[in-house]
Amino acid sequence: MNCAIISVGTELLMGQVTDTNAVYLSQQMNLLGIDVLYRYTVGDNDGRLQEILETALQDCDLVLTTGGLGPTEDDMTKETVTRVMGDHLVRYEQAAEALRQLAEKRGIAFTENNFKQTMLPSRADIFDTDAGTAPGFALTDDLGRTVICMPGPPREMRSMFEHRISKYLRGKTDSALYYRVFRIFGIGESKVETDLLDLIDAQTDPTIATYAKNCECSVRIATKQKTAEDAERAMEPLTEEIRKRFGVHIYSENGKDLPHTVGEELIRRHLTISASESCTGGRFAFELTTVPGISEVFERGIVTYTERAKMEELGVFPETLKKETAVSPRVAYQMAEGLYRKTGSDICVSVTGTAGPGGGTDVIPVGTIYVGCRMNGETKVAKLMTGSTDREWNREYAVSMMFFMIYLGLKNKTASTFLTKKIYNESELQ
Amino acid sequence: MNCAIISVGTELLMGQVTDTNAVYLSQQMNLLGIDVLYRYTVGDNDGRLQEILETALQDCDLVLTTGGLGPTEDDMTKETVTRVMGDHLVRYEQAAEALRQLAEKRGIAFTENNFKQTMLPSRADIFDTDAGTAPGFALTDDLGRTVICMPGPPREMRSMFEHRISKYLRGKTDSALYYRVFRIFGIGESKVETDLLDLIDAQTDPTIATYAKNCECSVRIATKQKTAEDAERAMEPLTEEIRKRFGVHIYSENGKDLPHTVGEELIRRHLTISASESCTGGRFAFELTTVPGISEVFERGIVTYTERAKMEELGVFPETLKKETAVSPRVAYQMAEGLYRKTGSDICVSVTGTAGPGGGTDVIPVGTIYVGCRMNGETKVAKLMTGSTDREWNREYAVSMMFFMIYLGLKNKTASTFLTKKIYNESELQ
Repeated sequence: MNCAIISVGTELLMGQVTDTNAVYLSQQMNLLGIDVLYRYTVGDNDGRLQEILETALQDCDLVLTTGGLGPTEDDMTKETVTRVMGDHLVRYEQAAEALRQLAEKRGIAFTENNFKQTMLPSRADIFDTDAGTAPGFALTDDLGRTVICMPGPPREMRSMFEHRISKYLRGKTDSALYYRVFRIFGIGESKVETDLLDLIDAQTDPTIATYAKNCECSVRIATKQKTAEDAERAMEPLTEEIRKRFGVHIYSENGKDLPHTVGEELIRRHLTISASESCTGGRFAFELTTVPGISEVFERGIVTYTERAKMEELGVFPETLKKETAVSPRVAYQMAEGLYRKTGSDICVSVTGTAGPGGGTDVIPVGTIYVGCRMNGETKVAKLMTGSTDREWNREYAVSMMFFMIYLGLKNKTASTFLTKKIYNESELQ
Repeated sequence: MNCAIISVGTELLMGQVTDTNAVYLSQQMNLLGIDVLYRYTVGDNDGRLQEILETALQDCDLVLTTGGLGPTEDDMTKETVTRVMGDHLVRYEQAAEALRQLAEKRGIAFTENNFKQTMLPSRADIFDTDAGTAPGFALTDDLGRTVICMPGPPREMRSMFEHRISKYLRGKTDSALYYRVFRIFGIGESKVETDLLDLIDAQTDPTIATYAKNCECSVRIATKQKTAEDAERAMEPLTEEIRKRFGVHIYSENGKDLPHTVGEELIRRHLTISASESCTGGRFAFELTTVPGISEVFERGIVTYTERAKMEELGVFPETLKKETAVSPRVAYQMAEGLYRKTGSDICVSVTGTAGPGGGTDVIPVGTIYVGCRMNGETKVAKLMTGSTDREWNREYAVSMMFFMIYLGLKNKTASTFLTKKIYNESELQ
């Protein structure tokens, strides 16, 4: 089944509100195995809404609308939809009664425009509301095309969808979409796609697609099946193939990000961790502490933004700073070592680099970053050259590399990652 | 001028990604005085994109697209737009050269599909990219209708819009929207709106609107004028009125956020700063270090997630931790004092609290946060009770409060903020 989603509301077109309803409904349609072909956003304007509705109904058997069911004058979705679908409005007594009871409970008198919400199309299936005052409805025309109208406030819409509309739609479809998301670090999106081109070209079901997200990328495979077991079976061969091609660069197969993948593993294994950061300014610690329960293993974070702080907090040698500068593999090494002396944590990571946008030199261009990691009894330092002068991109890449080095250590693996110039061993840095 | 915004990308229709681009562009069009009539979302599908483009161009002189300019096979926006607008693609040498240079700098070979990005419509105005590898362009047909194509990754799109496209569009309109954004901390949005109701009801030009954003809110006044001087004059009376009503709670009048407002002032005045954090896990330091040039004044950050770290790093007394727990005003006080002994920074901030979602008790419910601030020779501690169990909301509120306390100190002001239960003075905590 194909569907279109229409979000109604002038405030959306002004950019005052982010349209989370369309995202939620896209996800839900996807899970139900209904293809979303289009999404539209239109203001509270009868003529333009009619135009969009008619366009959408040309290609889709199902149209979902959110917004414009409320009591005020500019709410007209119901009126427009009813007219386009060839029906008329009648008073829906049950909703009027519910409204009167709510007024009594709150000890207030509803104004007359509130009762506008109780007028509904005569042929519609009505969806009562738990969270607001506007009912929703599904209206089908004689060509078998259905328009479902829902209220705009996200809480009301979701509650109605979850409790009533998803069941209504399930009755109309017989399969669902199952999928698996591989997250990959250290290989660029174009390289990932090139490596998968034969599979992408040959795809039918499961389908396969790549996505870039900041400094990583994802590969998603999806299949339409009746049960989870059928889906598992259908995805197995492709899953094996993807694992073979990207190996250790795949750090998760369930879509989970690096901080959660690594953080949850640390908690599971009771491995303590501390971090020392320079150019990332505390971002590693902040991202790590988004993981619930991380306080069991996260001991300490030190942000040493100045040379003095590096010496005082972590015992970095003044002569190393002088001879090799703060952005050097030896300083990253000494930061991790100093942190270990101080905390004794099982894992001690460090980072130093030039995030930019200014401050680079010919010898140490912006985007030069050293990440140190002490674990399993040894300290390694990775050198990155991002080639970017975008400060936040560089900081994000550095933090991801910190997590990825821990991930590799946890798996007892090594990897030559895309942007890594060199991995230094202990003997080179002592 | 009327415009439509088209977001291209199957991942949007799957609900995997929230479309922040369309929101951003809606806001920007609004500021330029260009009306957004429709927004569309369509997958990476040539036929459907063509259909949407043709529909949009019927009603609008200007169409903006985001997404589908990348190197992979499913990126086809450029090809579709070029065909619909009656042009053809040619190699844009400048972009090819930039790509080769980037490859050299990173020491990698780009795969051939990367160069697909350097093919552009022959008649187009080209917008170079600062943040990625795909250029954008504006293409006008013989009816004078313009389609502007931008890359999908939000950072690339915004950078291109800000540095190139907004100027291009400004050349096409004759009056512009000028505005002033007051940022307010410590008063809830409904209170702000209630306090402004008379002005909101009476608005014509300048218009006035309030926005809630996480734990703060903004008041925006806007006026359509020919010149900046006219705008200045038109906004003056309302500006005075707003200043009178919210006083010290207005921490900026140019839309700048707390970290930048505070950070830039510290740099200007050469005041050094260090931070000690518990529940916020380094977020204060991370946000402070988003400010370019902050390395001149930011000395050190310490994330003491455990009691041991609080004692070792900051000299918090074991008996205080035992008697009053880590979430107490005295611990916040000792953290700030210990940090000052260690660093001597002009400003030493601290934070301890229960961010949740779990871990609260009857005595110390989730959302209890103490923020300490040592500056101007004294240490104050503010107690917050957010009433929320949302971990990230609580952490964000705590960090904002840290910045706001510094802001107040810089202005030599005090404020009884909305969620602050109490401000402790030195004498109560020694």
